[in-house]
Amino acid sequence: MDFSTPATLVPILETMRTVMETDVLPLESKFGHTGLLTTILPDLRRIRDRVKSLGLWAPQLHKHLGGMGLSLVEHACVSEVLGRSPLGHYAFNCQAPDAGNMEILEMFGTPEQKERFLGPLVRGEVRSCFAMTEPELAGSNPTSLATAARADGDDYVIDGHKWFTTGADGAAFAIVMAVTDPSAPPHARASQIIVPTSTPGWRIVRNISVMGHAGDDWASHSEVRLEGVRVPKSHRIGEEGSGFLIAQERLGPGRIHHAMRWMGMCERSFELMCRRASTRELSPGKVLGTKQTIQNWIAESRAEINAARLMILHAAWKMQNEGAYAAREEISLIKFFAADVLGKVVDRALQTHGALGLTDDTVLASFYRFERAARIYDGPDEVHKGVVAKRILKGFGVAVK
Amino acid sequence: MDFSTPATLVPILETMRTVMETDVLPLESKFGHTGLLTTILPDLRRIRDRVKSLGLWAPQLHKHLGGMGLSLVEHACVSEVLGRSPLGHYAFNCQAPDAGNMEILEMFGTPEQKERFLGPLVRGEVRSCFAMTEPELAGSNPTSLATAARADGDDYVIDGHKWFTTGADGAAFAIVMAVTDPSAPPHARASQIIVPTSTPGWRIVRNISVMGHAGDDWASHSEVRLEGVRVPKSHRIGEEGSGFLIAQERLGPGRIHHAMRWMGMCERSFELMCRRASTRELSPGKVLGTKQTIQNWIAESRAEINAARLMILHAAWKMQNEGAYAAREEISLIKFFAADVLGKVVDRALQTHGALGLTDDTVLASFYRFERAARIYDGPDEVHKGVVAKRILKGFGVAVK
Amino acid sequence: MDFSTPATLVPILETMRTVMETDVLPLESKFGHTGLLTTILPDLRRIRDRVKSLGLWAPQLHKHLGGMGLSLVEHACVSEVLGRSPLGHYAFNCQAPDAGNMEILEMFGTPEQKERFLGPLVRGEVRSCFAMTEPELAGSNPTSLATAARADGDDYVIDGHKWFTTGADGAAFAIVMAVTDPSAPPHARASQIIVPTSTPGWRIVRNISVMGHAGDDWASHSEVRLEGVRVPKSHRIGEEGSGFLIAQERLGPGRIHHAMRWMGMCERSFELMCRRASTRELSPGKVLGTKQTIQNWIAESRAEINAARLMILHAAWKMQNEGAYAAREEISLIKFFAADVLGKVVDRALQTHGALGLTDDTVLASFYRFERAARIYDGPDEVHKGVVAKRILKGFGVAVK
Amino acid sequence: MDFSTPATLVPILETMRTVMETDVLPLESKFGHTGLLTTILPDLRRIRDRVKSLGLWAPQLHKHLGGMGLSLVEHACVSEVLGRSPLGHYAFNCQAPDAGNMEILEMFGTPEQKERFLGPLVRGEVRSCFAMTEPELAGSNPTSLATAARADGDDYVIDGHKWFTTGADGAAFAIVMAVTDPSAPPHARASQIIVPTSTPGWRIVRNISVMGHAGDDWASHSEVRLEGVRVPKSHRIGEEGSGFLIAQERLGPGRIHHAMRWMGMCERSFELMCRRASTRELSPGKVLGTKQTIQNWIAESRAEINAARLMILHAAWKMQNEGAYAAREEISLIKFFAADVLGKVVDRALQTHGALGLTDDTVLASFYRFERAARIYDGPDEVHKGVVAKRILKGFGVAVK
Repeated sequence: MDFSTPATLVPILETMRTVMETDVLPLESKFGHTGLLTTILPDLRRIRDRVKSLGLWAPQLHKHLGGMGLSLVEHACVSEVLGRSPLGHYAFNCQAPDAGNMEILEMFGTPEQKERFLGPLVRGEVRSCFAMTEPELAGSNPTSLATAARADGDDYVIDGHKWFTTGADGAAFAIVMAVTDPSAPPHARASQIIVPTSTPGWRIVRNISVMGHAGDDWASHSEVRLEGVRVPKSHRIGEEGSGFLIAQERLGPGRIHHAMRWMGMCERSFELMCRRASTRELSPGKVLGTKQTIQNWIAESRAEINAARLMILHAAWKMQNEGAYAAREEISLIKFFAADVLGKVVDRALQTHGALGLTDDTVLASFYRFERAARIYDGPDEVHKGVVAKRILKGFGVAVK
Repeated sequence: MDFSTPATLVPILETMRTVMETDVLPLESKFGHTGLLTTILPDLRRIRDRVKSLGLWAPQLHKHLGGMGLSLVEHACVSEVLGRSPLGHYAFNCQAPDAGNMEILEMFGTPEQKERFLGPLVRGEVRSCFAMTEPELAGSNPTSLATAARADGDDYVIDGHKWFTTGADGAAFAIVMAVTDPSAPPHARASQIIVPTSTPGWRIVRNISVMGHAGDDWASHSEVRLEGVRVPKSHRIGEEGSGFLIAQERLGPGRIHHAMRWMGMCERSFELMCRRASTRELSPGKVLGTKQTIQNWIAESRAEINAARLMILHAAWKMQNEGAYAAREEISLIKFFAADVLGKVVDRALQTHGALGLTDDTVLASFYRFERAARIYDGPDEVHKGVVAKRILKGFGVAVK
Repeated sequence: MDFSTPATLVPILETMRTVMETDVLPLESKFGHTGLLTTILPDLRRIRDRVKSLGLWAPQLHKHLGGMGLSLVEHACVSEVLGRSPLGHYAFNCQAPDAGNMEILEMFGTPEQKERFLGPLVRGEVRSCFAMTEPELAGSNPTSLATAARADGDDYVIDGHKWFTTGADGAAFAIVMAVTDPSAPPHARASQIIVPTSTPGWRIVRNISVMGHAGDDWASHSEVRLEGVRVPKSHRIGEEGSGFLIAQERLGPGRIHHAMRWMGMCERSFELMCRRASTRELSPGKVLGTKQTIQNWIAESRAEINAARLMILHAAWKMQNEGAYAAREEISLIKFFAADVLGKVVDRALQTHGALGLTDDTVLASFYRFERAARIYDGPDEVHKGVVAKRILKGFGVAVK
Repeated sequence: MDFSTPATLVPILETMRTVMETDVLPLESKFGHTGLLTTILPDLRRIRDRVKSLGLWAPQLHKHLGGMGLSLVEHACVSEVLGRSPLGHYAFNCQAPDAGNMEILEMFGTPEQKERFLGPLVRGEVRSCFAMTEPELAGSNPTSLATAARADGDDYVIDGHKWFTTGADGAAFAIVMAVTDPSAPPHARASQIIVPTSTPGWRIVRNISVMGHAGDDWASHSEVRLEGVRVPKSHRIGEEGSGFLIAQERLGPGRIHHAMRWMGMCERSFELMCRRASTRELSPGKVLGTKQTIQNWIAESRAEINAARLMILHAAWKMQNEGAYAAREEISLIKFFAADVLGKVVDRALQTHGALGLTDDTVLASFYRFERAARIYDGPDEVHKGVVAKRILKGFGVAVK
């Protein structure tokens, strides 16, 4: 057994931490107060250039594509450092959903798709989005899609209604999940199809107001209508009907990155909590940290973060060594366990700050309202619990539907 | 024992419910998406006129002042109905902090103060604010105020720094808590002084961005500087040094109204949860409410709301019959118990809505982020727990500081 | 609204409290260390005589039967006082299952049944048991009984297997739930039949070892076999097929009494916790109660006990005024809410005592292990939550099976 | 990073598992129903002989002493397997407190002490106990001991009052913590002294009734009086005043073993829960495991056990590689985190069994009542949380007492 961070990774993480502290964090306040990215995008672009020059660009991508070529476990550690700020992953070009889109295009894309769509994405010249969720249908049942891509000669004509399409605002293209064969078995009905957002019929209805903010650019979630959107069949990624299979592929590593991003937020919140506890005076000379309730929160948070972190790294290690299928139980477990820890740690850190915690003078209020989504996206926790339990019960000879 | 709602109150509550449903709730969406009151203030004023014409204006005020003259228990029941929307209390002119200010002015104001400040407030012509909390000092220790009112002839000259002054934006006057005698014992140091906001030296630094919104009008919390603010001594409410005593006076009934307002939000959230559970289909014909986890949330929420509601009504009944001093344990208990129930019920309702719950398409996301404050204002829950426990332990012969 | 204890009840409760303190509690230690009633039964009988002489005998029974004729709300208050000790209800002749059996016999018994079975029970000369639960079948589905009573001329011949038949050890008779018509609709299959334990074929297999103790007398739970047990049809209570209807009848008031008994245990545990907190020294002069964690437990326990108590009294009041049917939601809610509070309060009180809490030197370890059953008997909490939620959802137009 | 079990350990664990299943577990029922070891000690001795013959004896001891010479991480894995039954550790001669006493004697004992006391213990010929805790003083403050060892020539004369001296009943000797120099600084006051139980003045007052059972042999906790107990100074272990230092030494590895023993119980409980869920029928063909609440418990338990297990292994690994001092935060964290998980998993498994879970027909009721102690012994969880938090806050520049 060996729990140590890979030696080659240590200096990399160190440098990343420095970039985060000195470049990224100072931008947060402006973003937090306005809820709009536009004001800080120029600054972010400057940071991205610096990241590139430091050789830290796109840590999740193969080296031949211009990335760092890190393993899953290594990228998990990176994701934790970048997760300390909502701006971290974008600064290093490994933000969702672009990172997942790059992964898919690298694995399943044709040479033409790679050149036209993957290349600019890798270089950070454009952004993309992934249009899967639909408002009328339970997200926990991915096989029930209404968006249809009808074959018409060499083209698909797509009609549908999507929402929570993250980053659609300003994206160059979307990868759209659409039913290409409604008569196929449920898991073989859909395909993933690239839709340039300049295609007629692609329409952003609105950036959905989420927790009080419609947001903008990659920090937004759009409602989208596709009305007679015509794209060539060559825009399909992989085989027809492979949409869900490919979607599965992105889920495993994606969940590791997300969960470690949450750990970064946990560590940040934890530090803010400890700092507040050690500086806020209740009366002259007596700081908040002398209160046993605060001490309980610190101890419990430390334990829970350690627990979640070890579980995620273990899942990453298992996926890396035994494959995603072997690690599917661990991957489901971290989804709800880590999301729960995130919620608890942020909540305690906020409460420790009192009224200040409610304001946007710290990052905590933003973590509090936006990361509430962690228990919902990628399948609500309740669904994951059922999935894990049914798999375990199958080992006891019971097939529970 | 008798747990029934007073018979005379039943039709009143019925009418109020109707006004809420038909007039107030339809305004919520616009407010929720912009976070700004300005856009709906004209509509709210029309509703206020209707409320007046129905004889439902200012339910907490004595009849001779133009109110409904309800008892504490009765107003508790009213507050629950109005609490169903963040706009409810304002529509009926019993919103914080104006309601508390009216109460104070009625009890302790001079005839001149009543005419000049209370009158317009009662009639809904102006708004006011209450400037007590200071950023540098722990709110849980109200005796440590830095804002000072120095006597200068017939005037006070006030200097200080306040924040979370709710509704300062647009208020006609503030009631300011300031130290008038620093050499007095801690609880006799401060006085409450009326400061018209037109007085030179009163300066709103900013509307604090809370959970992503600076807000406006009465839906805002300001940071305020008082720099050489000069007001006549006749603006002091009550005796010099009576600031805390008077502040205590407003806390008891205020907490009842707040807590029942939370119950209104709980009931609203509960209904939204049940409605969602009974309409959202997981697959054709199978609604979300068939899932046992959702059923658990419904059952537990129902139990917890009932529990909190009974505790609050019991506290109100005891305060009404035996006085605030006799009921102080019950009043402390409801603070943290009801705030906890509110948090849990809103969280479950939101989760039941999935991604929709995160959006501002329902009121839940707004409850979620703004009512997080319930566990903090009026003293964080942790402080109340300590206060209650120490009082109980005193009964066992232990004086715990 | 009126939350006050009925004036006539106040002195009664006072006297009962005295009997509990001076007579009943001192017997606990002997019982706690041996787990056997035998050693204290003579003392308990003496206390019962005293209770009779004080006019406090059988508070739940009509006066013409020799009881106190209390209302449901009044008996709820009594049950709380008696619940402070595991020996309380027996001392006042209102212990389960005898109290329920008396109630049933009074409501549905024939004159002969009343004379032969109810009379001695009321006078405390004999004990009885209620044989319903079966080991092979889920207790949460009461309609699935395997025990059958076959008609044979004027007799029934009963065969079956029961367990958790509380107090079978030493009982004079049992009321047995048995299927009399397997072809009837589920809820009309069973009848309640009186079986004197001297009847051939009635066999106690064992007193089940529960939490380490097989127990004895009324403090035991037996596994019972009925093998060709022949009793006259005149031993049937009520109509044939009315078994479940009659069982329902006893459930409502029974749950109130149980739940208030739990409150008695909560109050006792709470007092022990506060006493420990106020006397145990961590260092000279510094008691355990100075620790904020202990203060949190005290405050939270006080709130939760108050909450549960009000809910139970409200349910009792509603049942008394509007009938059991109208109050069925409230009755289900208190089952799981109060059982949860009981578990939490006892756990905190035990933890406050440290190693001492694990020993039988206080009553807490016995509360801890035996009252774990509260979340299971009378239907596990999980079942009640489902029942409540489904009833609520029906109000929203959804019939959930 | 490498999360795999050491390859050499795999077959060892396999054999141990087999011994547990085929030899140890069948003895549990008899023990569970009587609460007395006496009835099964002959069987246990036979198992111990088999364990010796398989080369699995005393896994924690050096090979030259007759043990397996396992590393801390390896022994952690072993402890998990043995922890599946309350009888496991004794069967392999690594039960508390003997294992700790052997460790201490090996590290600090004189050749004479080793020959006379360690030898027979290693060979399993005798048992020992560790007398530290005192009833009058808070266990969480180990420096406040009242038991005194007065020097008298070449002897110590010891007077004191101990309790929770585990396994004193039938032990050949005790290691007694006693103050040898009351004038020294707190942590240098006490020494550990070997007291043969045949020494005049050593008196077992009683086996304390814990959760209903006084127990016997090593499954007991005694109250002990030492009255003028005279032993030669050569019975002191290590330097005078080194009592706490040596006690610290045993705490670290001891906590790892304990915590992994808890994991063994968690796994056992988890399996019982899953087996029950997959076999108990609610209605024909529909098992308990189809209920979402049960599925939630299975998923949450799986996640929590994994989390705790990884934390413990990580702490063991760190202690093994960087020493106990470097790992003290991790060791404190697992104490309360793992104890909490144990409590939750056992509680859910019990509830899943319904009434059966309350009986001694499964091992769960015994886990439930006896392992409640996990949150108390070795310092209550609350103390550990404070210790961790204060250490963390020190890193933020605050010295909290």
